Parts: sequence; C-alpha cells; structure tokens
Amino acid sequence: MSPSNPSGLFLALLLCAALRADEGMWTFDNVPAARIQAKYGFAPDPAWLDHVRLSALRLPGGSGAFVSRDGLVLTNHHVAHSWIEKIADPGHDYVKNGFLAADRSRELPVPGLEVRTLMATENVTAALKKAVRGGLPDAEAGKARKEALARLVQAAEARTGLASEPVTLYHGGETWIYSYQVHSDVRLVMAPEFAIAAFGHDWDNFTYPRHDLDFCLFRVYEHGEPYRPAQHLRWSRAGLKAGDLTFVAGHPARTSRQDTLAQMEAARDLLDPLRLASLDHTRKALHAFAAQGAEQARLVSAQLMTLENSYKIYLHEIEGLKDPVAMARVTEAERQLQAKVAQDPRLQASAGQSWGLIRHAVQERCAIARESALLDGRGSRALNHALGVLRWKLEAAKPEAQRVVGYRTARDLEKVEAGLAFSDRLDPAVEQACLAQGLQEALDELGPAHPIVAALLEGRSPRDRARALVTGTRLLDPAARTALAQARPGAVRDSADPMVALARRIELLARPYLRRNEAADSVITEQGARIAQARFAVYGKADYPDADFTLRLSYGSVESCPANGTLAQPFTTFGGLYDRADGWGPDAEDHSWGLPPRWQERRAALDPRTPLDFISSNDIIGGNSGSPVLNREGELVGLVFDGNIATVPGRFYYDSRFNRSVSVDCRAILEALDKVYDASWLVREILD
Amino acid sequence: MSPSNPSGLFLALLLCAALRADEGMWTFDNVPAARIQAKYGFAPDPAWLDHVRLSALRLPGGSGAFVSRDGLVLTNHHVAHSWIEKIADPGHDYVKNGFLAADRSRELPVPGLEVRTLMATENVTAALKKAVRGGLPDAEAGKARKEALARLVQAAEARTGLASEPVTLYHGGETWIYSYQVHSDVRLVMAPEFAIAAFGHDWDNFTYPRHDLDFCLFRVYEHGEPYRPAQHLRWSRAGLKAGDLTFVAGHPARTSRQDTLAQMEAARDLLDPLRLASLDHTRKALHAFAAQGAEQARLVSAQLMTLENSYKIYLHEIEGLKDPVAMARVTEAERQLQAKVAQDPRLQASAGQSWGLIRHAVQERCAIARESALLDGRGSRALNHALGVLRWKLEAAKPEAQRVVGYRTARDLEKVEAGLAFSDRLDPAVEQACLAQGLQEALDELGPAHPIVAALLEGRSPRDRARALVTGTRLLDPAARTALAQARPGAVRDSADPMVALARRIELLARPYLRRNEAADSVITEQGARIAQARFAVYGKADYPDADFTLRLSYGSVESCPANGTLAQPFTTFGGLYDRADGWGPDAEDHSWGLPPRWQERRAALDPRTPLDFISSNDIIGGNSGSPVLNREGELVGLVFDGNIATVPGRFYYDSRFNRSVSVDCRAILEALDKVYDASWLVREILD
Repeated sequence: MSPSNPSGLFLALLLCAALRADEGMWTFDNVPAARIQAKYGFAPDPAWLDHVRLSALRLPGGSGAFVSRDGLVLTNHHVAHSWIEKIADPGHDYVKNGFLAADRSRELPVPGLEVRTLMATENVTAALKKAVRGGLPDAEAGKARKEALARLVQAAEARTGLASEPVTLYHGGETWIYSYQVHSDVRLVMAPEFAIAAFGHDWDNFTYPRHDLDFCLFRVYEHGEPYRPAQHLRWSRAGLKAGDLTFVAGHPARTSRQDTLAQMEAARDLLDPLRLASLDHTRKALHAFAAQGAEQARLVSAQLMTLENSYKIYLHEIEGLKDPVAMARVTEAERQLQAKVAQDPRLQASAGQSWGLIRHAVQERCAIARESALLDGRGSRALNHALGVLRWKLEAAKPEAQRVVGYRTARDLEKVEAGLAFSDRLDPAVEQACLAQGLQEALDELGPAHPIVAALLEGRSPRDRARALVTGTRLLDPAARTALAQARPGAVRDSADPMVALARRIELLARPYLRRNEAADSVITEQGARIAQARFAVYGKADYPDADFTLRLSYGSVESCPANGTLAQPFTTFGGLYDRADGWGPDAEDHSWGLPPRWQERRAALDPRTPLDFISSNDIIGGNSGSPVLNREGELVGLVFDGNIATVPGRFYYDSRFNRSVSVDCRAILEALDKVYDASWLVREILD
Repeated sequence: MSPSNPSGLFLALLLCAALRADEGMWTFDNVPAARIQAKYGFAPDPAWLDHVRLSALRLPGGSGAFVSRDGLVLTNHHVAHSWIEKIADPGHDYVKNGFLAADRSRELPVPGLEVRTLMATENVTAALKKAVRGGLPDAEAGKARKEALARLVQAAEARTGLASEPVTLYHGGETWIYSYQVHSDVRLVMAPEFAIAAFGHDWDNFTYPRHDLDFCLFRVYEHGEPYRPAQHLRWSRAGLKAGDLTFVAGHPARTSRQDTLAQMEAARDLLDPLRLASLDHTRKALHAFAAQGAEQARLVSAQLMTLENSYKIYLHEIEGLKDPVAMARVTEAERQLQAKVAQDPRLQASAGQSWGLIRHAVQERCAIARESALLDGRGSRALNHALGVLRWKLEAAKPEAQRVVGYRTARDLEKVEAGLAFSDRLDPAVEQACLAQGLQEALDELGPAHPIVAALLEGRSPRDRARALVTGTRLLDPAARTALAQARPGAVRDSADPMVALARRIELLARPYLRRNEAADSVITEQGARIAQARFAVYGKADYPDADFTLRLSYGSVESCPANGTLAQPFTTFGGLYDRADGWGPDAEDHSWGLPPRWQERRAALDPRTPLDFISSNDIIGGNSGSPVLNREGELVGLVFDGNIATVPGRFYYDSRFNRSVSVDCRAILEALDKVYDASWLVREILD
C-alpha cells in the first residue's frame, strides 16, 4: 500500500458498479430500458418516448420544451438572456426587471430566435454503405460518401418537408438523418428578474445548495396564432421526493468521454494548468487594478467575475482528472478495450497503433504548448481584437482546404466575425495593467532572449511596452475596431497602429506552432475515430455516443451527494432563498444575493416550504440547460439549469458518487407565477 | 513556472500579509493592542480585558462564561453533553428532549462538574531563574527548577487562596502561575434538544453554512445560593453585522504551530495517510457489514459516523498540509528563523543543529510507523480493551521514571483507566468483521512471513483467526471486561482468554517499537524546546505561544470565505434551519436533519430572519468550544461551537483566507428561549 494513494481506493473501484450507475446521454432510438427497469422498476415505452421527444425543443445553445397545448415554451433564463437583452430598450430593462405579458396579445416577438422539434430520425448507416462502392481509394470513398449523404439529406427534406441534417454517432459508427420542425415566430411571455433567475450570480455557478429561479417562458406562433404542438408536457401536481426516478430530455452539447488516457493526462498535467496559471496572472493583475479604488473596481468587476468563474472550472477539471477512483476506471476501460482490439486481427490492424500515435501527437502538442499559449492577446482585449481581425482576413482570403482549423467553413468564419464584435470602449488603464502582466508572464516563462519575447517587448520592460502600445493604438475605440474589421485585407497588413503591428508579428511567430498543433490534432482526430470505431465494433450500442447537441435522454433519481464536507440536501426551498438573502444582506459582493423588490414585498405570501431547486443523478452537460426533467408518467417536474462542481470534469467521465444535475423545481415556478407575479392566467394555462 | 505548482502562488505569498492577519491565540498579558487598533480602529484596554477575563470560564474540555449577575453560565451543548447524560435517567432523557428548569429551585445539580475563573496570573520567569543557582549540571538544575516552581505555586496558593498551577509558555520561554477560583456547585438550567443543538449531526461537523443551536445554560451556586460573580458578560441587543470586529475569549487546548517542516511533512506524507488508510479499511469493513441488512446497519451506525468524521478530519489535515501557499509560508518562517539563529553564536550553539536532529528523529519514527500502526487492536474493541488493561497494569507496576509516555503520572493512569470503561455488550459479528479486516490489512502490509503477522494470524486466514478469537473470548461481555480490569496484574498475565493471549503477544512485539518511538519523541521534544527558546529569544512576545488550554484572546471580524465553490454567507438564519429540515425531510440519514417536535410546532412564532450561526476570522481550536464571542463593547454577541473545515489543519497554521470559527448568534438563543421554550424568566434575567 502506498500511503498517499491507498490501494483500498482501487479495491473500491472493483466493488463500485455504482460509478457507472445512471450514466449516459442516450439517443431516443437506444434508451437502455432493461437497465432502467432493473434499477427503478420502470422503463419508458415507445409512446412515452415519442411524447417526450415531440415535446422537447432545441434552442440556440440550449434546450427547452412545449409545456402547454397553446405552444408555451419553458427554458432557462440564462438560455433566453441574450434574446431578452435584444428586445429590451433603454426604457424597458427586461433583464433586470423581468417581463410579464399582461395577456397573449402583449407577448413580445423575439426576432431571430428559432426553436426546433425533432420530428423524425432515420438510420442511414446501411444506405450509405450501399451507396459507396467497395474497393475505392480512401479519398474517393470519402467524396462518394459525402455526396451520397447529401443526397440522402435532400431526399429526407423533400419527403418530410422538414429541416434535415446528418448526425454522426459513435464517431462514425452510425450515421443518421435528424429532421426538425423549425419554429421562427417565438415571443416572450414571461421572464423573472435577473437577480432571482441568477441568484448568487457567477459565484454560485456550478454549486449546490442553490436557490435560482432560472426559468423563462416563450410562446411559439404560427401564422400569427399560438401554435398547437402535437405533444406537450403536462405539469406534475405532486412533484418529486428524494429517491424518485427522473428523466432529462435535452441537447447536451459536447463530451470527450472517448478521449484516451494520454489526452486526459495532458489536460491534467500541462494544458489545463497552463490555462489556469494564465488566468491566475490576469486575475491577479485585475485584482491589483481593482484595489486602486472604487471606480477601478467597478471597471473590472464583470471581467473579474468571468475570470474567477473560468478559474474555478479549470481548477475543478484538473481536480477531477486527479481523482484516483474515477481515473482508475478510465484507465481500466482503456485497458479492456485495448485487450479486445488485440484479440481481433481486423481491429488490431485498424486501431491497434492508435493509442500510441495519439500519445505521440499529444506529446507534440505539449512540447509547444507553452509557446503556443503565449502567442495570444496577452490579456489585452485590443490586441486580441487585432489578432482576430488579422487571422480572419488572412484565412478568409485562402481556399477552404488551406485554412487552419476554426476558420475552415463559412460558418466558422461567421463565428469568428461575430466574436470580434464588442462595442464597449476599452479603458486604457485596465488594458495597460492586463497587457503589462501578460508581457511579464511571457518574459518570466521564456526569458528575455527568446524570439517571442523579443517580438513582444522590443527591448523594453513589460510595463513600458504596454504603456506605449495602449497609448499608441486607436483600437480602444469601438468605431476604430469596426473600421479595421470592415477594411480590405491589405489595410490590416499596412496599418501603422502599433497594436496591429504587434498582432502581425505575433501572427507570423504563431503560424509554425499553429501548423504543428494542427498536424498533431489531425493525428488525434484520425486515430481517435479509429479507436471509436473499434469501440463501436466491440460494444456496439450497449454504450452511448459522445454528446453532439442532438436530443438525448438521461435517467437518474433525486439523490444527495457529498458537498462542502457534509451531504447536500436533495431539495432547497424558498425558505433557503431568503436565508441566503438575509445571511448576506442586499449589497454584499455587488448585490450577488440581493432580492428584487417584488420578492421582498411578496415574501409573506410565499410558502417557505415550497421546493425551489433539487439535485438528481442524471448525466448532463452544457447544452442541457433548459431541459425538462420528467417523472415516470412523463410529466414535467423540473427544469435543468446547471450541474454541481463534479460535473465540470463531466466532459471526460461521469461519476455517480458526485455528479449531480441541478434543476428548478416546477412547484417553485408555479408558486412564483401565482404569488409573486400575479400571473394567474399563465398558471391556468399551464394547469389546464 | 512549473504548471502543477504555479509560481504565481508563491508570488501571492509575498503579497499576502493577509495570511497572518487576525492570527493568534494571545495571552491576556500580551494582547497585540497596536495591531488590532491599526486594523480595526479599536483595541481593548486593561479594564476591558479584566472584565472579559473574570467573566470567562474553563470547563472540562471546553470554555464558557458568566452571562448574568446571578451566575448563569453559557457554554456549548456539546461541551455539556456528557454531564447532561450523567444526570439523565430512564424516565428523563434530557439529551434527547432537552431540559428547562421551571424556576431556579428546579435547577438540577450536576455532581462532579467544575468551572473555573482565572483570577490572577503571575510571571515567575525571573523568580525561577533567581531561585536556580547558575553553573549547576543539567539534571540538578532541572530538579532545583522543579522544586522552586513547586514552592512558588504553594506560595501563590497560600497568598490567594486559589487553585494555582504552573503554566509554561513559549515552550519554556516564560513560566507563569495561573490562579483559579473553582466552582463546584454547578446546576443545569436549560439545555435544548440534541436534535437542534447538533442539527446535521456529525455530517455537518467542521462545515459551514451551519444551523446548530449548540448552547446550554448552567448556574453556579455558592453555599446553596446563586453565585454573584465579580464580572459577567452583558448580552448585546444589537448583535453583529458583516465586517464587525469580534473577540473570542476561551481555552484553546493544543496547537503545534511551532513544529518543524520535517514534522509537518511526515504527518502529511506518511503518518496521517497511514491513519487515513487504516480508517478507510475499518470503514469499508463496517459498510460491508451494514450492507447485510437493516439490523446490521443499526448496530454499526454510530461507530461508522465517528469513523467517517475522523476520516474527514485526517483527509482535510493532509489537504491543508499540501496547500502550497500555506506551506510556503511555513517554510519561509522556518528559513527566516534558521537565518536569525545562524547569526547569533549563542543561539546557533543551542539550536543550530535542532532542525537536523528533529528531521532524523522524524525519519526514525517514519521508519517504524507501519509496524507500530499495526500493533494495535486491529479494529477489535475487545482486543483493544485487552491491550489497554495489559499495558496499564504493566506500567502501573513500575516506578514512574521507567514508564512509557502516556502512563507516567497518576493522572495519566487515571485517564487510561477511564478510557477502558465502556459498558456496551459487543456484537460478535461486528467484532469479527472488523478484526478480520484489521488482520487482513496487516497481512497485506507486511506479508505472511513477518513476525508480527505470524503472531497475529498463527498460520490461519484472517477470517478464520478472527472467528476463533471472537468466539473464544469472554471480553464481549461488559462484566468480563470489568473483572479483567479489576484483577491483579498476574491474572492478566496468566489469563487463557485468547484475546488476552493475543494482547500479550502484541504487547511483547510492540515494546521495542514503543521504545524507539519514545527515544525519537524525546529528541523531538528536547530539540523542539531549543528551537522554541531560540524563537522566543528572536521574536519574544511579538508572537503568541502555542495553545495549552489556558485563557487566550483572539480577534477577528465577521467575514465570508470561499466554501463549496462559492462564498459562504456570513450569517445563517432560522429560515435556513427550516430550509435544510424541509430539504432533507425528517427521516433522512437517521434523522440527521430532523427537527424536535417543539421546533416544528413553534415554527410560525419564530422570525425566520433571526441570525442563527455566523463565521468570523477568529483563530480558534478545540477547547475553544463554548467560548464567548464579544463585540468591541465587551458585550456577548455569540458562542463559538466549531471551526470550518479549514480549521482542521489549524493545529499547524492559521490561514486567514479560509480559516473561520463558527458561532451561535446570541440573538438566536434569545429568540429560541422566548418563542420556542417559553423561558421568559431566563430571558428577563439575561437582559436584566
């Protein structure tokens, strides 16, 4: 026994089937009914699944559901946030003050917002195989595959009249076509105040016990009338209790659970710690800046909160990747798959070398990780902007096949462009402090003689160099940034702005590292696909595919877990909301736990026992925000809005000891609509 | 920069004077007034200190204070627990149901309970020096010192008429005589129900946010009348708010903050992990036993809870000893002291080698730590008892000077005897499961050929050997254990009971290890004293002495800290108490968060906004339980009952980033006395 790594823990691993229990984000065609039945004495049948699938909705960046016969849509406030912001105007701050339509005629159109229902799915794996003649060389087969798939998608669209898209599951093990009904007349019905929807602000993000009323109601219209969906979720009157079976239907965005151990180790030992250290540097620079006075603190408070939150996430991802029990399981799963592959000559030929090749590629990435990490905006938002515009223009000018990853498709380029648009005037003092810190970090890391440092500093001290750059640039001004983004590529190449000039030098220095990273990444992608296909050949659909923002079902139960040195209570209540507000006072930490006026006034009207949030063992991840939580009757009982801190390493694995999704209890929504918002017409519609 | 150990953290160390802020358990003769004044704009004057000192009380294992002019004593329920248990009888379970005297005449005498006030202190360092003639050989000087000190104590007792005892501060830097007034007619006035005093049971121990009403009221009598103390604490009407200055006057029992880095590293890397691994083994054996059925679970639930709690404590002590910022500070302090010692030839001669000698002694302890740890009761309470009786008899029979540590004085032997008395009948199945696990652990650790394993197993499997021992022993029976303890030493030597026979073999095997440990310990003690005296020579009373269960003052403020991924609220409220009770339901985890009937019935009468518990940055440790928390006016505002999880490594260091004491807010006590217990006569007395 090694004392710092007790062998008992590894023993526990063998005992603990619990580690896998309730794991999985399952496609609706492959819900593990027998497994659910064995554990919970119930399993969803096809009618149950159809009802839930047709009620579930995909929103931009999140999930939702139809929750009334007249097309009411329930999702999270934080999924709706940017849309609410868009329709707000100076006289109507619907984010801060919330919004409630007086009646249906006053619901507010939200231009651009689309929601979609998954109406039909079709497994085209076999059809695709048939369409691509055997014996073709790789490149030709790939092209034929692509064309055949495009034809199948077109055929599906023609047949169904729905928006259809190809879906690759199991990293290529299966190909499907998912067809969606798209609704684009979506109106805001009700949004609570930001302060109650995001009670505890970013401090409480990824934590539990929690007291957020993170919901929002939209309505879908068709031809100017409320839409009547084929299916909608009825609201449970009884609600949940501890131990009850729960389902979550939603759109988890991305997991990397099939990554190899080498990839996870690199994240744990180098890549995440590098990001963490860099965040830590910027965080310290901003804290030091904020310490200069109240105005300085105000200037950076939002940026600091975001940084602190990213810091928290990387910290816990690293911690998760160090958990001996969880990582022993990952290691053991890899070992088992390797053994199975080794037993099958065909698999061995295809994937036997893949783990080794990935390990090498990961080593290559790690070898240049420090330099790569330093060739960024160095904490300056102006420099980041200049770099972004430059790279965007350079890549857009090339043929698609020659572009670097992230700039390849038209969609990629749109995304980059959108990311460049931010309209605040940058504060020179903040810019200078952050950039000086960023330059200092590069100097400390690589030493003064390194070519990267020479380019960054031009022989000056970090502080002087930052001052010169920030004083000399025009990019603090939003108009100048817009002008740069809209200028012809040559203008960016010729600009005399010192920040743009530095961006050009960084870009030049970064290019070989980008290419090396790209080469390593393509090995990782190719070999990862081989492993995934081998895994699919061995385990088939006994396993679930990595998340890809398609509709999934997860199952679990309302269940406590260790938290904060004790056990987390399965439910919180309105009483707990007021406890935290009282315990902090209204002004603490920039009003993070302050209650909106209406919530102070209506306190006595609310039953403090009403369950507010709860945790369950459902396996979820980002993108699941706004997912309905269902009981075994398929009724709505909750609304997923977060995961606890143990879901942070959920990108890599699920651990039933600690992993919990955090949901708003629907009883709290009804109680609040009734007692706080006087929205009796909505309550009647919901309970109709 | 090493990515897993970012250099930024070490930079932070230099920036963070905050690490030391509010640190210290100060003697009343040496309160750092200037430091408190500088930070909080107030410092206690001599009158303030006298008032508080004369109001403060030492209780067995804890602290308390006079809180009314008629001798009412406030302390924690958990300090009073065993005394309340003693005066309970089958018809009156005062622990479970609480107790409230209907009036003063019904207050319940608590035989054996003593409380003491520190009436006078005298620095005898110089007198002692004068009394011991220079130039004597070490042994003679020691003897002369001891005799002189005894004379000084006698003189103090004669002069003051008080119970006087010598106090060694700064590991010998100063010697004092502390004189106490002892009160031995103490009566129980009011105790809340266990379920509200220890809400959250052991789960919540060392955690915050917290919702315990952990208080108890006694009264001191003299000559059959309520005692009128010279000073008592008045209760604040206003209470505290976040940021307010707080003082804690109490009796911290023991710290090891002057331990060397080598000692802390040994605890971190070997000694604590060994204990942790052993706890983990027993814990698993008990969990496996409990999994057999409801009755089995009931049998071991209390033992499991205690184990889990110890496990939590060791786990967090190890974590604390791994904290890079805190440990960098410890390392730097040691380096600085070594540098100062090296500059002074006298100090260098006395203590220059001490760190190296301690490191060697620690290595010796570590070298035999595994074997030493296995020569215990191996999880069997019967074997533990046999070992205890055997060692106790063997040591008691020797002259004092030849006894091993822990058995030396008459007081030591009394303590051992008290520890041997436990009256429950041991369950053979539990004993067998734990002992089999303990024997298996020894086998796994040392292999079958090791003489310790040979003695433990006698060639059988752990399971068979455990079965034979448990079946064969009579020591499961309390009567048999009492008989063994009361028997003449020879009877223990000759007993044919297999558990006693095994104890004799273990004792024989353990003796050389005990001796080696003892030799190493004596080096550590001797060299530790040299370092401490050097430290005192360098820093004098700018530092505070290690805790030793004498009266200390700590200062701080009501202050949040990171907890559970977010920030901890400075106060909790009655609303939060009900939130947790509702969120768990009454039966969860063996009623750990269940409310007593009275607290359910009176819910509507209570103001949910009333502050219940709070955290402050005061530096405290075990023994401080029951300490009054005071505001700058010297009024009572709270009652210390625990520390948060960051206080677990507080034995070694204080870290103001995380370290918080947890106290009951006095407003909660008054509100509960009034609204829940109808104890208006007590409220009147308190507010008089």
